[in-house]
Amino acid sequence: MTNPDRRFVLTLGCPDRTGIVARIAGFLAEHGGWIVEAGYHTDPDTGWFFTRQVVRADSLPFGVEELRERFGAVADELGGSWRVSDTGESPRAVFLVSKDGHCLHDLLGRVSSGELDLDLRAVIGNHPRLGPITEAHGVPFHHVPFGTDPESKAAAFEQVRGLVDEHDPDAIVLARFMQVLPPELCAAWSGRAINIHHSFLPSFAGARPYHQAHERGVKLVGATCHYVTAELDAGPIIEQDVTRVDHGDAVADMVRKGRDIEKIVLARGLRYHLEHRVLVHGGRTVVF
Amino acid sequence: MTNPDRRFVLTLGCPDRTGIVARIAGFLAEHGGWIVEAGYHTDPDTGWFFTRQVVRADSLPFGVEELRERFGAVADELGGSWRVSDTGESPRAVFLVSKDGHCLHDLLGRVSSGELDLDLRAVIGNHPRLGPITEAHGVPFHHVPFGTDPESKAAAFEQVRGLVDEHDPDAIVLARFMQVLPPELCAAWSGRAINIHHSFLPSFAGARPYHQAHERGVKLVGATCHYVTAELDAGPIIEQDVTRVDHGDAVADMVRKGRDIEKIVLARGLRYHLEHRVLVHGGRTVVF
Amino acid sequence: MTNPDRRFVLTLGCPDRTGIVARIAGFLAEHGGWIVEAGYHTDPDTGWFFTRQVVRADSLPFGVEELRERFGAVADELGGSWRVSDTGESPRAVFLVSKDGHCLHDLLGRVSSGELDLDLRAVIGNHPRLGPITEAHGVPFHHVPFGTDPESKAAAFEQVRGLVDEHDPDAIVLARFMQVLPPELCAAWSGRAINIHHSFLPSFAGARPYHQAHERGVKLVGATCHYVTAELDAGPIIEQDVTRVDHGDAVADMVRKGRDIEKIVLARGLRYHLEHRVLVHGGRTVVF
Amino acid sequence: MTNPDRRFVLTLGCPDRTGIVARIAGFLAEHGGWIVEAGYHTDPDTGWFFTRQVVRADSLPFGVEELRERFGAVADELGGSWRVSDTGESPRAVFLVSKDGHCLHDLLGRVSSGELDLDLRAVIGNHPRLGPITEAHGVPFHHVPFGTDPESKAAAFEQVRGLVDEHDPDAIVLARFMQVLPPELCAAWSGRAINIHHSFLPSFAGARPYHQAHERGVKLVGATCHYVTAELDAGPIIEQDVTRVDHGDAVADMVRKGRDIEKIVLARGLRYHLEHRVLVHGGRTVVF
Repeated sequence: MTNPDRRFVLTLGCPDRTGIVARIAGFLAEHGGWIVEAGYHTDPDTGWFFTRQVVRADSLPFGVEELRERFGAVADELGGSWRVSDTGESPRAVFLVSKDGHCLHDLLGRVSSGELDLDLRAVIGNHPRLGPITEAHGVPFHHVPFGTDPESKAAAFEQVRGLVDEHDPDAIVLARFMQVLPPELCAAWSGRAINIHHSFLPSFAGARPYHQAHERGVKLVGATCHYVTAELDAGPIIEQDVTRVDHGDAVADMVRKGRDIEKIVLARGLRYHLEHRVLVHGGRTVVF
Repeated sequence: MTNPDRRFVLTLGCPDRTGIVARIAGFLAEHGGWIVEAGYHTDPDTGWFFTRQVVRADSLPFGVEELRERFGAVADELGGSWRVSDTGESPRAVFLVSKDGHCLHDLLGRVSSGELDLDLRAVIGNHPRLGPITEAHGVPFHHVPFGTDPESKAAAFEQVRGLVDEHDPDAIVLARFMQVLPPELCAAWSGRAINIHHSFLPSFAGARPYHQAHERGVKLVGATCHYVTAELDAGPIIEQDVTRVDHGDAVADMVRKGRDIEKIVLARGLRYHLEHRVLVHGGRTVVF
Repeated sequence: MTNPDRRFVLTLGCPDRTGIVARIAGFLAEHGGWIVEAGYHTDPDTGWFFTRQVVRADSLPFGVEELRERFGAVADELGGSWRVSDTGESPRAVFLVSKDGHCLHDLLGRVSSGELDLDLRAVIGNHPRLGPITEAHGVPFHHVPFGTDPESKAAAFEQVRGLVDEHDPDAIVLARFMQVLPPELCAAWSGRAINIHHSFLPSFAGARPYHQAHERGVKLVGATCHYVTAELDAGPIIEQDVTRVDHGDAVADMVRKGRDIEKIVLARGLRYHLEHRVLVHGGRTVVF
Repeated sequence: MTNPDRRFVLTLGCPDRTGIVARIAGFLAEHGGWIVEAGYHTDPDTGWFFTRQVVRADSLPFGVEELRERFGAVADELGGSWRVSDTGESPRAVFLVSKDGHCLHDLLGRVSSGELDLDLRAVIGNHPRLGPITEAHGVPFHHVPFGTDPESKAAAFEQVRGLVDEHDPDAIVLARFMQVLPPELCAAWSGRAINIHHSFLPSFAGARPYHQAHERGVKLVGATCHYVTAELDAGPIIEQDVTRVDHGDAVADMVRKGRDIEKIVLARGLRYHLEHRVLVHGGRTVVF
């Protein structure tokens, strides 16, 4: 019954003051909590304190519901926002895709091999191309065609919203979705919608970033995984990376080299999100 | 008399057409030229051809002047711009600095150890702080104070121009100079003035890039070595690199980590320039 | 009939002497050959010259067979080994795998999206696990069980050899195959068998490299793509890369992080091989 | 009198058990200690717990001596080894060098600009070349010639030992010293002597690592900063990094590119050591 690998993950952000670590660690120690990983950070600019604690579930005398109640009381004392999650429950996810399959192939491989612990409920595409590979992995695929006029776009987004929300997912991953989410969806999915942008933001936001990068003659191209917000490509950054290019690389070569960075950066960012490593504050992230 | 390490470096940019490589290689082979390094590139977007050839000086039956005459005739046939340089003549350089010494310390160390083959004529500072270390390396230092009003700035730049131009330098290095060159100096020193900007351009051009980077919450900070043009931080990029930062890095940490990238990127970019590896075309560089 | 994207790729290695570039470029120019990419290298230690030329097929007045005859004559004059390949013919490949699917998933995704131009004839596994995903991509899968005693291993390798050789593949990719090829297969597949080793060779050759790396306390782990030779993990290196680890990474974390490097490095190395960018000389590679 | 930037740094390693964090945090909270940075790590293989805490000195009602007494008592309860240091006292260092100046130039620049907070007592060279630059920075230089026979080497090391030990340094930095320390010096300076080795260990230990790397045909070269132990190049690794090389890089190019990695890696490693970020356990390091 007891699984020695099951963990409770506690996160908290609150105004910094003396004694917070002692308060939390004392609370856990009091109940015999065995901390296997702990991160702390104080942002001197905002005076905000952040922590993430990973505790062996079998070391505590109560379950996740009672832990939430008790830890919530401690967190309330400290005036912060908090969360307790349980690795015994696989997080639910929905992926949104278009025609380019490199991110989807990569994520499906990670789910299939068990590297990503994920309950993948559905993949939704605005193009049918990635249906067969999705279904070969035993995952339902929904093709939602997007028109070019505002009305049909709005209708398509309404359909997408329904298909997503029925699963109440912990993560909605825009895996090169190529459609800009309307503000109401950004709001509804705030903190859960993750995008991969194919540039090293803030450089080259918006359309055709590799063309922009080629035009400017940069020597590295990159990718950025970020939370989706109403302002395009301006959400809190979770992860970024770059790869080297040179004058011999045409736009098509940049696109090809960039794909490898995009998929790695998205996979890392999604993993951080699912493991509750990411705390957002003031437009920036703490990634434990 | 003959130095087996002496090289002639030929560079050429011209409209692409069939037979250029054969024409140049044939010209060199005809005179027994021993090519030790050769780079070729064609830009499919602009239809421009670029090459850089390094030839053993002692393999040719004539000196650099006659080579210039003969290669110039070949290049004229091809309708291109060209250059022949001689590694037997150390390139002349002047450095412009301010208070931050990391780039200057680094470059002086490279000159002192013989890594950079450079005839460093002078260092000019708008602040006296880096005078002693410069003079300890046996290099003349000139302090040119810059006022804040336009007239005194203009006068200071006039003085700098005189101190630079008397050496007719092959490279004018803005090693964290912190003053924006006036358009007439950008024009006069076009293709010779090299700047290091402390961000991964085009992100965070202008003032206080590490503050901008911290504010945006990026996960990598970088540096860019570029030719100076009249538009601020928009000149052709020679070299870039980045280093990882995280939420634990305050602006001061970013500044510290960034310094290591700045000095490495500047040293690489300057080396490429001095070895005539950089060909500029249409706002971008080919770096052989 | 004429495909403007079709290329002939010429490679040559020969003793260096004056005039080689002129000879080859002159030969191509004589027939109107339009060179779109050219690489040259001379190894000063061995006095060996290497080149790779990419020519537009539609610029030559003859086909690949006649080009082979003519270029072969030029190469024979120069005393070198050479090859002419035609991008109009997709290279044939067979993959060997075991249980870990990250490299296979990645390669199948690249083939499926058209990024890797490859005629993938078969995947052979010493374990059945990766059969379904292979077949979902429409590629035949053969399960060849390997015993632990020498006889059954030899028999299994004989079966693998038959399944591979019937396709006369240009590339035999050991995508985390986990079996050491016997010397006769190394010889038979010399220059065509490519392995990915999960360490930054020459560190941690042989078994369980991540355990070795963890034990030694290194701060980066890597992967190496190399040609298979009779000496284990000692063949010519095509490509390598690394990723950062720290004290917080247990062996399992190193394995996970390493997978991303393994698949990227293998994909790059395979691409270089298929594009005839790799020339082997004296146990080392030139990668144009 | 009170300096708001002064910090006390507490480090502790002890057997892991429930309640350690609570014990330490409780101790600090009890006295009003304001933690500005905290790192925790448990090694699941060895069952060892590590922590590093940075506390504002002006938040505690007592000085460093009383803190040592009180924290020592807590640490003794936990059965661990511990240390309390005070950023108000600049650490003392001695550098050992030979002919190659890139690491020394780099470190002197960092000390001179205030980036490295270090009381540099002396530089000792087995060659006189780096004397002038050292003295230009106002630091005493001692030339200790090393013979090639065992007796004169032993005598030279005896002299070096005297010159080092009179300063009781916190760090003895072998900045490309090129002499193998005898076992008795390794023992006497254990945990304080830091070396930079010019390869990515464990590859290419011992002499001429760039020649070894070139011979093997690796695609990246690196550097390793480690504590010196009696077994050559086998001490606990503090920091490593690599840079890309290709077939065009002769040994001399690898040496040149490697220098930039060596100096950066040494500077990082030394900084981690001086900030008490490095805890050694079982031949590996935790670097907070």
